[in-house]
Amino acid sequence: MAGTAGPEIERLIQLLARLPGLGPRSARRAALHLIKKREALMTPLAGALQVAIDRIQVCKVCSNIDTQNPCTICTDRRRDPSTIVVVADVADLWALERAHATTGKYHVLGATLSPLDGVGPQDLTIDALVSRAHDSEVSEIILALNATVDGQTTAHYITDLLQEANVKVTRLAHGVPVGGELDYLDEGTLSAAMRQRTLF
Amino acid sequence: MAGTAGPEIERLIQLLARLPGLGPRSARRAALHLIKKREALMTPLAGALQVAIDRIQVCKVCSNIDTQNPCTICTDRRRDPSTIVVVADVADLWALERAHATTGKYHVLGATLSPLDGVGPQDLTIDALVSRAHDSEVSEIILALNATVDGQTTAHYITDLLQEANVKVTRLAHGVPVGGELDYLDEGTLSAAMRQRTLF
Ligand SMILES: [Zn+2]
Ligand SMILES: [Zn+2]
Repeated sequence: MAGTAGPEIERLIQLLARLPGLGPRSARRAALHLIKKREALMTPLAGALQVAIDRIQVCKVCSNIDTQNPCTICTDRRRDPSTIVVVADVADLWALERAHATTGKYHVLGATLSPLDGVGPQDLTIDALVSRAHDSEVSEIILALNATVDGQTTAHYITDLLQEANVKVTRLAHGVPVGGELDYLDEGTLSAAMRQRTLF
Repeated sequence: MAGTAGPEIERLIQLLARLPGLGPRSARRAALHLIKKREALMTPLAGALQVAIDRIQVCKVCSNIDTQNPCTICTDRRRDPSTIVVVADVADLWALERAHATTGKYHVLGATLSPLDGVGPQDLTIDALVSRAHDSEVSEIILALNATVDGQTTAHYITDLLQEANVKVTRLAHGVPVGGELDYLDEGTLSAAMRQRTLF
């Protein structure tokens, strides 16, 4: 792409272009920026990647990622062990943590079921979740999955599997986003928000 | 940002967020993608960055970047040594090379003059350009600078300095949209602009 830039820079550009959010053009700009900021950015980034390579693991309990295993959340005694919040992806766990949305623990599925994309139950950490749900300490499983077809398919599938476990299975409410304007919401969200209305 | 992700992942996210084109949210996604693709992407990227850190240099002749010094273009005997194409940035050199717009050599200024941003002549490789222009081998200097105020200010400044040199000073034709940046142009426009270059 850069032509005369040489194979080393070409390779750097091609690898950067595989990051989500960077296309070929922005990958070229990112590579140049890194090369210009060799000491201030490229060297620290190379180091941070190496630390991540060496130290980051998938938690054997919840499939969160961390440098500890079990992860910081799983080993945190202040977290409520009776509640497991099920998310598709670590990014969703991070979003809920930023929102301080729960004091419970998590379970990261790794994906949502997607028959069209060939993602089946065996590709998710569902067996481990069912096993955790049978722990007598656990009383509620909160399914914090996307309100998409795949997310809801996954929620139904898990709910069926958890019939045998002695747990309450709940899901996130549908409703008006905080700061959201009614006029911009789809009809499904509005109807759900009306049905699930709460006392003021 | 990611809260419980631990300082190592936080640091990786913060460094990625400093790449052009990635904000805080996309940096989190990029970090997660890298961690998930440890063998296929994170490890190769760390290696490519280290190679770049170790091997990429600024060409002592033209200020292009390359693992050779002088760079591949400066040492390429098939390139026309009588023509020097002056660009602000390596990204512009790459864009012209992708368009096969010239067989000449280059001179990378490093920036354009921008009094408002405190970028003066001493911040650009102008002295080296003037010195090269006095080489008897050189007969034409093509100013391939952005059609912005700063780009044209820089073109005028350089043209004045080159009065003493025995060279023809030209600039890209007005195929470049006013206010447009070279790096965003399609190859046909770039080639046409190069063919139709006019006396400055
Ligand atoms: Zn964990
Ligand atoms: Zn060079």
